[in-house]
Amino acid sequence: MTSKPTLGVGMVGYAFMGQAHSQAWRTVNAAFDLPYAVDMAAIAGRSEDKVKAAAEKFGWRSYETDWRALVERDDIGLVDVCSPGGNHAEVAIAALAAGKHVLCEKPLANTVEEAREMVKAAEAAAQNGVRSMVGFNYRRVPAAAFARQLVLDGKLGAIRHVRAVYLQDWITDPEFPLVWRLKKEEAGSGALGDIASHIVDLTQFVTGQTITGVSGLTETFVKERPLVASTEGLRGTGSSERGEVTVDDAALFIARLSGGAVATYEATRFATGRRNGLRIELNGEKGSLVFDLERLNELELYLSDDDAGTQGFRRILVTEPEHPYMSAWWPAGHIIGWEHSFTHEAYDLVTAIAAGTDPAPTFADGLQVQQVLDAVERSAESGSGWIPTTDNS
Amino acid sequence: MTSKPTLGVGMVGYAFMGQAHSQAWRTVNAAFDLPYAVDMAAIAGRSEDKVKAAAEKFGWRSYETDWRALVERDDIGLVDVCSPGGNHAEVAIAALAAGKHVLCEKPLANTVEEAREMVKAAEAAAQNGVRSMVGFNYRRVPAAAFARQLVLDGKLGAIRHVRAVYLQDWITDPEFPLVWRLKKEEAGSGALGDIASHIVDLTQFVTGQTITGVSGLTETFVKERPLVASTEGLRGTGSSERGEVTVDDAALFIARLSGGAVATYEATRFATGRRNGLRIELNGEKGSLVFDLERLNELELYLSDDDAGTQGFRRILVTEPEHPYMSAWWPAGHIIGWEHSFTHEAYDLVTAIAAGTDPAPTFADGLQVQQVLDAVERSAESGSGWIPTTDNS
Amino acid sequence: MTSKPTLGVGMVGYAFMGQAHSQAWRTVNAAFDLPYAVDMAAIAGRSEDKVKAAAEKFGWRSYETDWRALVERDDIGLVDVCSPGGNHAEVAIAALAAGKHVLCEKPLANTVEEAREMVKAAEAAAQNGVRSMVGFNYRRVPAAAFARQLVLDGKLGAIRHVRAVYLQDWITDPEFPLVWRLKKEEAGSGALGDIASHIVDLTQFVTGQTITGVSGLTETFVKERPLVASTEGLRGTGSSERGEVTVDDAALFIARLSGGAVATYEATRFATGRRNGLRIELNGEKGSLVFDLERLNELELYLSDDDAGTQGFRRILVTEPEHPYMSAWWPAGHIIGWEHSFTHEAYDLVTAIAAGTDPAPTFADGLQVQQVLDAVERSAESGSGWIPTTDNS
Amino acid sequence: MTSKPTLGVGMVGYAFMGQAHSQAWRTVNAAFDLPYAVDMAAIAGRSEDKVKAAAEKFGWRSYETDWRALVERDDIGLVDVCSPGGNHAEVAIAALAAGKHVLCEKPLANTVEEAREMVKAAEAAAQNGVRSMVGFNYRRVPAAAFARQLVLDGKLGAIRHVRAVYLQDWITDPEFPLVWRLKKEEAGSGALGDIASHIVDLTQFVTGQTITGVSGLTETFVKERPLVASTEGLRGTGSSERGEVTVDDAALFIARLSGGAVATYEATRFATGRRNGLRIELNGEKGSLVFDLERLNELELYLSDDDAGTQGFRRILVTEPEHPYMSAWWPAGHIIGWEHSFTHEAYDLVTAIAAGTDPAPTFADGLQVQQVLDAVERSAESGSGWIPTTDNS
Repeated sequence: MTSKPTLGVGMVGYAFMGQAHSQAWRTVNAAFDLPYAVDMAAIAGRSEDKVKAAAEKFGWRSYETDWRALVERDDIGLVDVCSPGGNHAEVAIAALAAGKHVLCEKPLANTVEEAREMVKAAEAAAQNGVRSMVGFNYRRVPAAAFARQLVLDGKLGAIRHVRAVYLQDWITDPEFPLVWRLKKEEAGSGALGDIASHIVDLTQFVTGQTITGVSGLTETFVKERPLVASTEGLRGTGSSERGEVTVDDAALFIARLSGGAVATYEATRFATGRRNGLRIELNGEKGSLVFDLERLNELELYLSDDDAGTQGFRRILVTEPEHPYMSAWWPAGHIIGWEHSFTHEAYDLVTAIAAGTDPAPTFADGLQVQQVLDAVERSAESGSGWIPTTDNS
Repeated sequence: MTSKPTLGVGMVGYAFMGQAHSQAWRTVNAAFDLPYAVDMAAIAGRSEDKVKAAAEKFGWRSYETDWRALVERDDIGLVDVCSPGGNHAEVAIAALAAGKHVLCEKPLANTVEEAREMVKAAEAAAQNGVRSMVGFNYRRVPAAAFARQLVLDGKLGAIRHVRAVYLQDWITDPEFPLVWRLKKEEAGSGALGDIASHIVDLTQFVTGQTITGVSGLTETFVKERPLVASTEGLRGTGSSERGEVTVDDAALFIARLSGGAVATYEATRFATGRRNGLRIELNGEKGSLVFDLERLNELELYLSDDDAGTQGFRRILVTEPEHPYMSAWWPAGHIIGWEHSFTHEAYDLVTAIAAGTDPAPTFADGLQVQQVLDAVERSAESGSGWIPTTDNS
Repeated sequence: MTSKPTLGVGMVGYAFMGQAHSQAWRTVNAAFDLPYAVDMAAIAGRSEDKVKAAAEKFGWRSYETDWRALVERDDIGLVDVCSPGGNHAEVAIAALAAGKHVLCEKPLANTVEEAREMVKAAEAAAQNGVRSMVGFNYRRVPAAAFARQLVLDGKLGAIRHVRAVYLQDWITDPEFPLVWRLKKEEAGSGALGDIASHIVDLTQFVTGQTITGVSGLTETFVKERPLVASTEGLRGTGSSERGEVTVDDAALFIARLSGGAVATYEATRFATGRRNGLRIELNGEKGSLVFDLERLNELELYLSDDDAGTQGFRRILVTEPEHPYMSAWWPAGHIIGWEHSFTHEAYDLVTAIAAGTDPAPTFADGLQVQQVLDAVERSAESGSGWIPTTDNS
Repeated sequence: MTSKPTLGVGMVGYAFMGQAHSQAWRTVNAAFDLPYAVDMAAIAGRSEDKVKAAAEKFGWRSYETDWRALVERDDIGLVDVCSPGGNHAEVAIAALAAGKHVLCEKPLANTVEEAREMVKAAEAAAQNGVRSMVGFNYRRVPAAAFARQLVLDGKLGAIRHVRAVYLQDWITDPEFPLVWRLKKEEAGSGALGDIASHIVDLTQFVTGQTITGVSGLTETFVKERPLVASTEGLRGTGSSERGEVTVDDAALFIARLSGGAVATYEATRFATGRRNGLRIELNGEKGSLVFDLERLNELELYLSDDDAGTQGFRRILVTEPEHPYMSAWWPAGHIIGWEHSFTHEAYDLVTAIAAGTDPAPTFADGLQVQQVLDAVERSAESGSGWIPTTDNS
């Protein structure tokens, strides 16, 4: 029933991120006036039973058991890479080579080297109008996007302080089993790559500054865990044998940013009671703001220009038509959820493709975040000494 | 790609509620394991241009310009009534007569008389296995559903106090024009029917008690407003002529409930700064709880059995697998939005249809809410005297 | 060590209010630049052991076992009446007759009739420059005083809504014994006189409006309680015999104010988890504010003149030099306690005495509050009908 | 009017801390049942006009213009050192030598060397039953003392994370003049000594662990400021000449604690909007807690033993009789202020003196805090490398 051109989307992976991205592709047409009609063409996964079930449940009209087949299909113009990080480089580079636009989940790759290859591939593809983007979805939370606007408009003046934490608690139980995310060879790193990456990207996005150096430490509180006996369910079932945890449970670092700000960062999976506590506070010459992912529809804002006596942090409900993305949704005061950040990501990407512009964050942005995390790791391994994060590649 | 039986849904209306319900029908298959594959068969509206555009944008596969045609279609098994309240009785009764299950937005009707007719039609249809439900969607917010569980499980003991407000502020500007919601002949009432209805239903649902009597007052702060010159946009454009506001801007009442609780209720569109402030507090013998729609992923809970010295209101993030509806969504700490209440409503309704059970809230529940509001109006008109709300029909 | 004239203070009563007022008289000289050096001359109580101990502990330099002796002492210029409400009229009238300034704790009296007598005595004394004041101390919480300033300066525009609760929970346990506060003959009323009186006074103070009519209900949830076997401690010890509770556990009412606002009020001792939850919200044409006694150093303020997109309730920490009373205390951000309201009360009273002006709230203000409460009681007794509160004395 | 023995107190200094300590000495008798009757004997300061005015205002019965005279007075048993940090060692050591108990404001001294001398003097005096204590008053905030109890009772299990900030904003304006606190020769350091010292002590107190190593950075955002033309008022008046700021505006560090916890610390005077934002969060194996000085009557507590689905951070109002110090004050729900921490400090000190036990924090505790801060400074000066903080003196 539509006269718009169609953009076929193919997705690789059907786990947590696959479900979230599917919800985005399913809803983006209805929320926004898109230049294309998005067609959920195909989903790829190795297990036919599972990928077939995922296709049916999430609304993809076909499936593939080999991502290479998906990447080559003529009815697919955009490949959405939701597989584990170790697989990103191979899929994304192949997709770009096949002339498909690529959305790649974060982290861009498990290693800086792979990320560099991906950047090269993306830059080459861009010459031919093929677009690529890394999935730091929290940039698309309206309150975060609005925070960036406020900073870039100068409402806070020069930023002095950045204070960022990403606090989770899903492995505080020492009997939680040794799932793949706790093994270096599969996950690359622990809290550092999984969640510190988000606060590194988000603080750089909101401030418009980049991290220039870090001094950090990492810790693994629980050194051994039960092996996974079965993989059903989120955590699987523990066995009586134990194996070594080879990633960090927590990573902490102090940093300096390119615009003169100083910063503290902390990412952990041991913050009991904090389910998904990404919290950022910025203090500037003229104001401050606070963002908290567990209350993502809110932004706290302090402006020192307010009259003496009436100064205070305002709790802004970021649901007004004036706020980024929100005119697509409901009347003021009707909140949105975590998943909407993916819908906004899809909207921005499709819009950029139609406009022929490069969407952000680019693969180069993804690489830069990897380099910051790499510097934290090197600092932690070398007595917390200062490591500059500028790229000397 | 599915082997499930199909349930064709037809929707009447495409404004605010139409958009919200469309989002629900679009996402319910992917979030839940439904007994039916939901088919968004058709949407009906009088203006062909608009209904066609709505069908395309919201993802309905066909449209009708006469709701009577929609009600008769063989590929439709469920009619979702999202038209204005004055139209509910006619559509719902016709749909039930045609053997279609019916979901009817609140308020059930603009008058108690119409609501009574609808209840009769629903009860007759139920004899034939045709189901009906009224759309008090806030019952399906996980925190509210969980609150009810806690109360019915006796965690709070006997409920002593109910404190409920629904605060909005969209007409505080006296130049806001005289839209249909401010005219008695079209809207039935003002804040009373539109939003007090939600807190009446929700507090009754959560406490398991019904309101037995009320004493109230209503107020219209701005008696005249600019006529609407054009209806584009949410508020249209004001003309230089003015007309009389014939509904209440605010309604306040005190009440008694069937289980011995006493209560205050307030609904207003003049609470500057409160965009969508539905807030309920219950105090029981053994505990208390607070729910706030602007933070709908949270529930505050106080239990007096907690150890002395460590008693306090807990801020529960209602995003755990233990919480109603939430296992369908994301890991703990990843919040959902306002619209998800409609997805949950669709899930409950489709599940009840498959199970052959009567879904709640029934049309009779909708009528009972109308009777409470009617009692408030009568009290307000007669010097705030006490009016019992029990049905003597 | 001082050259200021001395103002001798004599206090009647040494229980909870006596302790709080003693703290005020002890600290007021050090915090403020007073026109007088306050001399804590004497405290009166019937039990010599207890009053002697109280004098020593609280810092009074002498004591009396008969308040009549205290009232007559030449070294006393001001009598502070902290005895139970049934005793207020007799002491205050005698003190005024003896030419002493009087501070009388709230409620002014247990009955409207006594309150009227006190007003007459105060007005007669005022002819001779003798001052009187009733102790609604919450007017002197800086955030409340600042709220009044904001309203009177027009920052909120016309006030549309008042929403006031005073929630406590100290008698939720049905085995809590039948202390004097639960007997009508001693306490006059229950939650109504004890705590509803505070929110009536405070909302009238902050809005500058008076209540013109009410419709209310009262409830006694626990009708019988154990008799008090011994009076040691706050609650004494329960006996196995039971007696009837003759006051209200809770009182709720809706009201209209002289400036056009509508209001809900609620006072209860059964709000489990709310220890001292006095909370007031005002919504005006141009802004709103919220005050909460459990966070008395804060004021939430919403101003609709803030730029679109950045509107929100500000959490003002009311500890700035710009805020009432606060320049006497600590640097910004260093909070004060509940007891400071009494110090501020003492400051205002002493300042008014020196200036020869009438301090507020006057005994007439105290009477007006009694009349409002009396109207609530009469409404509750007569089916919640509307009762105007205007004085026809 | 008392039969208790008298303890004469002499205070050195009458500025901010002098005022706060005076309030404590004035109120401690009335709040607590002390073993001594405290006599505010004398206050010392160099300017006779000022010290005389301070004596009169704050309630000291005499004054001295030379602290040496005060230290020698027979009617003084305890010397309270509230002068600037550079003067602490001299006064405290002289007082201890004269056999007076000593309360010394923090920081113990401006240098580690002076602090070491003071520890020696204190240890020698202790042999003779002369007591000494350093004034980290925040240990005496009831919520903080209660937090320590919870941790030591094992309610949180092993502590994994410490997150501590002390955020102020009083010098964000670059035209704020170059007061003594911004000069290294007078203040020793900036935010580090002034406020980081508080969070170092408080986190060690609450966790029962000590910091074993740090990696830090410091920053001076505004390098030059107007010279002070006149010293009237808190900030004086700026001149047109400028001078160099020689202390840190902000200090940030990561740390490890003796019990295995990892930590971030941050102290700054550039956190716009944060007036006195000392905030501590601890995450343990079994629970977490949060303390915020701007809401010092509250403690947030999370216990993972709570039933699934009802877990959440509890907001405890720390005003119950079960809470440390609070039985001295008002009924539950009636909050206290910042100054009460000093009253509690005085109570604990006087009680220890009477009991013949050593009060905490000792001078050795004060020295240990200095050593941590010294390690931070050395790390900041040497590229943020790791510096162990164990004493090798």
